[in-house]
Amino acid sequence: MSRSRDEVLKILTDWGRSLVDDVLKDEEPVMHIPTRTLTNIIWDEKRKILLLGPKTIERRFLDLNEAKRFMQTTLMLRLIVQSIREGVYPTIRDLYYNGKHTMELNEPKLGKEFRENTWDEQAESNSVIEDIEVATGVLREEMGVSADVKGKVVGPIVVRSRGFEIDATKMGDTALSLPPNPDDLEIVKLDAKYVLVVEKDAIFQRLNREGFWNSEKCLLVTAKGMPDRATRRFVRRLSEEYGLPVYVFTDGDPYGWYIYSVYRSGSIKLSYENERLATPEAKFIGVTASDISKYKISDNYVIKATDRDVKRAQELKKYPWFQSREWKHEIDLFLKTKKKVEIEALSTHGLKFLHEYLLDKIHHGKWIE
Amino acid sequence: MSRSRDEVLKILTDWGRSLVDDVLKDEEPVMHIPTRTLTNIIWDEKRKILLLGPKTIERRFLDLNEAKRFMQTTLMLRLIVQSIREGVYPTIRDLYYNGKHTMELNEPKLGKEFRENTWDEQAESNSVIEDIEVATGVLREEMGVSADVKGKVVGPIVVRSRGFEIDATKMGDTALSLPPNPDDLEIVKLDAKYVLVVEKDAIFQRLNREGFWNSEKCLLVTAKGMPDRATRRFVRRLSEEYGLPVYVFTDGDPYGWYIYSVYRSGSIKLSYENERLATPEAKFIGVTASDISKYKISDNYVIKATDRDVKRAQELKKYPWFQSREWKHEIDLFLKTKKKVEIEALSTHGLKFLHEYLLDKIHHGKWIE
Repeated sequence: MSRSRDEVLKILTDWGRSLVDDVLKDEEPVMHIPTRTLTNIIWDEKRKILLLGPKTIERRFLDLNEAKRFMQTTLMLRLIVQSIREGVYPTIRDLYYNGKHTMELNEPKLGKEFRENTWDEQAESNSVIEDIEVATGVLREEMGVSADVKGKVVGPIVVRSRGFEIDATKMGDTALSLPPNPDDLEIVKLDAKYVLVVEKDAIFQRLNREGFWNSEKCLLVTAKGMPDRATRRFVRRLSEEYGLPVYVFTDGDPYGWYIYSVYRSGSIKLSYENERLATPEAKFIGVTASDISKYKISDNYVIKATDRDVKRAQELKKYPWFQSREWKHEIDLFLKTKKKVEIEALSTHGLKFLHEYLLDKIHHGKWIE
Repeated sequence: MSRSRDEVLKILTDWGRSLVDDVLKDEEPVMHIPTRTLTNIIWDEKRKILLLGPKTIERRFLDLNEAKRFMQTTLMLRLIVQSIREGVYPTIRDLYYNGKHTMELNEPKLGKEFRENTWDEQAESNSVIEDIEVATGVLREEMGVSADVKGKVVGPIVVRSRGFEIDATKMGDTALSLPPNPDDLEIVKLDAKYVLVVEKDAIFQRLNREGFWNSEKCLLVTAKGMPDRATRRFVRRLSEEYGLPVYVFTDGDPYGWYIYSVYRSGSIKLSYENERLATPEAKFIGVTASDISKYKISDNYVIKATDRDVKRAQELKKYPWFQSREWKHEIDLFLKTKKKVEIEALSTHGLKFLHEYLLDKIHHGKWIE
């Protein structure tokens, strides 16, 4: 699956070299970078993901409005290339600090001294990292950039990382924490029938200890709330490369439903990555608004929605990936009843009811998408 | 180390049975519960941890002010005993929902109907869990209560969980996610010279990928910010049972210093657990206020402290475990300069400087405590 560090290095240095070549030919170096603004984000109805459209911007070295950003982009490119060559794995914040410095220029003719910071805020250096990603088609994970890792997995999968084989059926009460770049993970063996993505870490722990993946022959995955890029990429690989059904299990509130949608279709802000991070086949088996009556959850166990919940639900209604009949019905019902339910409320029917609920939803096709 | 589920079950049922015995003898059942309020929290200067003092409260069944709380405690005890017997591992939120119900009483003589919820808020059910912990000396982890797990480890340690041996030198770019109850983890082999606890997950990933634990023969641990109970317990075991030095590496700001102090001495709120969770020997090798000049971090890379930082530093000054000469000096210096520094600012001296900094602090005794 994954490109080697050498291949990545070649793509990045080729891009840098093409800019140098322009200069050596006395031509103005120009970068062509796909536009990441909202106007260039397209909902692909067939593939059910958000994608970048065809618009690109030209970043010209000799344009006074673009020169600083041009400099920032080449500076960042140099830092990333250098880190790959030296075998270090900086975070985006390391790159920010490493590249931040003040450039000084004395211009005696004008009797003036110029001082300019390469960048002042991390937002600036982050933004050029994204530019390099879309311009070269190399994700930051492939560049070896380190980031927080939220994802964990247990169940019938054997992976290989840096030559070491890890069998995720042999973790006991522990779990396998995903690597920063899941594309580097070789999947040696996979015996699972499906993937169960659990919003809540504590529920993941419960299901692991109670042998859920063992009796079900499934993979349990959690990213503790909103998923990071690595967890999304890992889930996507399981769906795309192995055709495993993916079920997402969250609380019954607009935030949980949004988490599902991030696994499935991605976020608007990061839509340039959805093509490799989204899992359009992911199905929702979390708590829905209609579950309150279907599973007889009495008012004693229901939480009143806040204004923020309502606002979020109204936003969800507008998203292209919540336009199915089922989702429209659920969101409208929520907006009417203003009731939300946590996963743990299922325990009102007994501490083992969680399992019955999951099996009912998964094996009787009671998911929505 | 760990008590078996059967032993834990016996302690809990013995306590319950003693209450039943009182009733059968026509005596009033009374619970004796160590007081968890601030007035009963003691700083043990010798052991350098916060402890519960000798005060206990009596919770009497026939006291109208205590009867409800008495009922809540026995209800929770029953739920926990039941979950152990049935082999389920509920979260504290599961227990809240599972135990929440409305009790109804018709009193025809008075022509009145009474309705009372067992509890309304999770704060109530959580509080009786803590009562049961301090009354029986059994931590919730031993009861099999599930919780979010934040901790990860890599390095020269082999552990056994539920019969499976896991070698944390063979994880590649992945990591071993700790179990909810680290006392259940059997340490089969330990070849490490020390434990490096890293505040930031992304820095943990960097150091793992850059082979830090391999060249240093150390364990790398992170809990991604403020540590959870399981990570604290795991670190404590490494210190107590194996005498490993523990170094804590955080950002150079009052929040990072507070994180260090939670590993070392515990939090005031949970002081009843410090006796088993705190690591009084933990040393601080994170960024200090005086590091700004020692390691030549220019103003370009320094962040201005907020009012909240200043307030937090003033609070730290009052804690008994920040009374060493070194800490007083550092906090005073911070309050004077109002400058804070992130770990990543070290990258201004190059992307590999992080390693030099750590080796300098660890091998030249440049820690404070």
